[in-house]
Amino acid sequence: MKQYVNPAKAEWWNLIRRPELDTLDLSAIVGNVFQDVKINGDSANRKYTQQFDRVEIDTFKVSQSEFDAANLSVSEELKSAIDVAISTITTFHASQLEKSTKIETVPGVECWRVSRGIEKVGIYIPGGSAPLFSTVLMLGIPAKLAGCKEIVLCSPPTTNETIHPAILYAAQQVGITQCFKVGGVQAIASLTFGTESIPQVNKIFGPGNQYVTAAKQLATTFGVAIDMPAGPSELLVIADESAVPAFVAADLLSQAEHGADSQVILVSDSQRTVEAVLVELENQVAVLPRQEIARKALENSNAIVLDSIDSCIDFSNAYAPEHLILAIQSAENKVASVLNAGSIFLGNYSCESAGDYASGTNHTLPTNGYARNYSGVSVDSFVKKITVQNVSEKGVQAIGPAIEVMAEAEQLMAHKNAVTVRLNSLNS
Amino acid sequence: MKQYVNPAKAEWWNLIRRPELDTLDLSAIVGNVFQDVKINGDSANRKYTQQFDRVEIDTFKVSQSEFDAANLSVSEELKSAIDVAISTITTFHASQLEKSTKIETVPGVECWRVSRGIEKVGIYIPGGSAPLFSTVLMLGIPAKLAGCKEIVLCSPPTTNETIHPAILYAAQQVGITQCFKVGGVQAIASLTFGTESIPQVNKIFGPGNQYVTAAKQLATTFGVAIDMPAGPSELLVIADESAVPAFVAADLLSQAEHGADSQVILVSDSQRTVEAVLVELENQVAVLPRQEIARKALENSNAIVLDSIDSCIDFSNAYAPEHLILAIQSAENKVASVLNAGSIFLGNYSCESAGDYASGTNHTLPTNGYARNYSGVSVDSFVKKITVQNVSEKGVQAIGPAIEVMAEAEQLMAHKNAVTVRLNSLNS
Repeated sequence: MKQYVNPAKAEWWNLIRRPELDTLDLSAIVGNVFQDVKINGDSANRKYTQQFDRVEIDTFKVSQSEFDAANLSVSEELKSAIDVAISTITTFHASQLEKSTKIETVPGVECWRVSRGIEKVGIYIPGGSAPLFSTVLMLGIPAKLAGCKEIVLCSPPTTNETIHPAILYAAQQVGITQCFKVGGVQAIASLTFGTESIPQVNKIFGPGNQYVTAAKQLATTFGVAIDMPAGPSELLVIADESAVPAFVAADLLSQAEHGADSQVILVSDSQRTVEAVLVELENQVAVLPRQEIARKALENSNAIVLDSIDSCIDFSNAYAPEHLILAIQSAENKVASVLNAGSIFLGNYSCESAGDYASGTNHTLPTNGYARNYSGVSVDSFVKKITVQNVSEKGVQAIGPAIEVMAEAEQLMAHKNAVTVRLNSLNS
Repeated sequence: MKQYVNPAKAEWWNLIRRPELDTLDLSAIVGNVFQDVKINGDSANRKYTQQFDRVEIDTFKVSQSEFDAANLSVSEELKSAIDVAISTITTFHASQLEKSTKIETVPGVECWRVSRGIEKVGIYIPGGSAPLFSTVLMLGIPAKLAGCKEIVLCSPPTTNETIHPAILYAAQQVGITQCFKVGGVQAIASLTFGTESIPQVNKIFGPGNQYVTAAKQLATTFGVAIDMPAGPSELLVIADESAVPAFVAADLLSQAEHGADSQVILVSDSQRTVEAVLVELENQVAVLPRQEIARKALENSNAIVLDSIDSCIDFSNAYAPEHLILAIQSAENKVASVLNAGSIFLGNYSCESAGDYASGTNHTLPTNGYARNYSGVSVDSFVKKITVQNVSEKGVQAIGPAIEVMAEAEQLMAHKNAVTVRLNSLNS
């Protein structure tokens, strides 16, 4: 990690920049796959699955016998762990369901909101060696709570022609409606247009590589919504001398192992704390299986000493981290000062991996500074809130004259007239 | 309006299609203005304002003396009407502020959400002959309630070199921070990059023509969020024989006058009701100042008879209207069946223009079928919700072993280790 001691505020802009990504212009490649899937549906999917995943797929939909086989192959230990996560995630996300409350804005005018699950949602789960079943929980549970009717999961097939058993097990536990063995750009295109076997959806969620991210962006031009812009994972830890250096180092590494393009930031009011964490980092990184990745991420990463914890929080607000650990005394008292972050972890025992798996919060969070203008995924992400108004005779008499004046001032005379015909009928 | 009686369900796809728009590919034009504003700032804005608005602007920021002059020129009648709207809109939107509730997901693990206003937001108000001050209220009030610190308004200058007084009056009443006399693509570019005088913002709200819409889309590629995709306004009325035909006709016309590309749909279980509404439509359209626009919109519009009110609601759910009037008996009982709509208006006296101005609900709503996957603007649109977790020693002991198992199954050993170092320290 690069070290900075009391950098001037004028230098902060440089320290809050994310590492430059080699972003390719993928629009031509992605656009071609979209056109092909739109026109040729599943046969295009067969071609791309053979080309990119090196697997021949006849039927994309996961069958009951594949689910049964998955259930047999997941260990009881992992099943129990998934149960714990389902319980905490469900408990917290259920609290996000909005109760409808009628508000009388003037006598005779009642307004309220009702929530409706987005009818059809798609969840993309990347392939690769590590099966991201935890993301199935993080997206499937709020989708189900929100009342989404169709929850469709797409994930690329492994070389043995199905989806990783842990993903299929998790999908069943949280009530995914259908799973399809298709990945990459073609999966996103299939969810956008629908194919013979894969339904079109209204909103697409989930992580992915640069191709999947570009495909999700393109999907938005065809009327499909997406969860949020994606970017590499990141963590900012604010630590004072009450922090346990070994814990802080372990948390920094848990972000750093995600990818060479991940970034971790340590900010402290104590040079001694920073030095102790750096020693622990060196000890712990040496024994990690993903050591090489973590070391690369640490090269992009900064350790910064500032004059006070308040300055550390100012810096964090400027950076707008996806994950923010407050490993400081009376951490909860500082939450009020945090303006921009995806999720906040308080004290020495709230490790970031708790939020990734089982504290109950969602791990799909805004990266790359998007915590300034986006929230993480929640039940809100899977519903539309529809406003309702009930205006009585008395109500239209109360607000009608004001509407007439405003509509006329906006030169919208038919808007005015819609009130006038009602007021006239009540006065006649 | 075109009439359809009991169209087969297989024909509905054709009836729920929006009128085709002549969408131009504006990406080159919009992209050039963005580059110019990014590099040349206010001097580019001066050039485009002269070119498109035919006005020479030296200082873009609206001065106190311009505000003072606006306050003098707005009539007391309009000021009182705006006061009514501010009161109802504030009352309803204040109810949307989320109270933070701590949830114990397992003993020792507390999770909750905190809301933070997006720090800097931009509000775009189009120019033209009709000053859309009502949109200033609909965007400014929730922004202020949400706690946004900078609320910047851009609107093109009129020929007398300032912004329409009703807009400036409304802006002051709701607490807009700064107003700028700049419109079109250059306004959106200025809010995206910032200029010498105009601050960069995190999220851009507000309506506009095709150029502004394309500019907002482009802004999202530079890290700025936007409210929602825009499209022509639309209304669907479900009427039974309890509906007052004159009221229904007035409501249909209040949408139709918005623009020749607007669409209105009447759906009923009664041929007699449809015929009575069509007679009223002809009577009322003849006396409208915007008669020509309204007649063009009616050409794009449909009157459909179906076998029951439940079928009418099914049709509406397939159409997903921006505005839905339920001019039917026991209208409130049918709200539960509505799945896709921006805002719902109940009974004979809830005219759509009530929601446009003063019932208290927001009038910035999803069009063009986006009610399937987007909500209208609310306080939620102006906040980020940040999750917080506080895991105690007891809490990490409760969920830690499950996290270790899941992290290992996802091959993220540093994630596992962040828990292990804590559990080890508690067991030692």
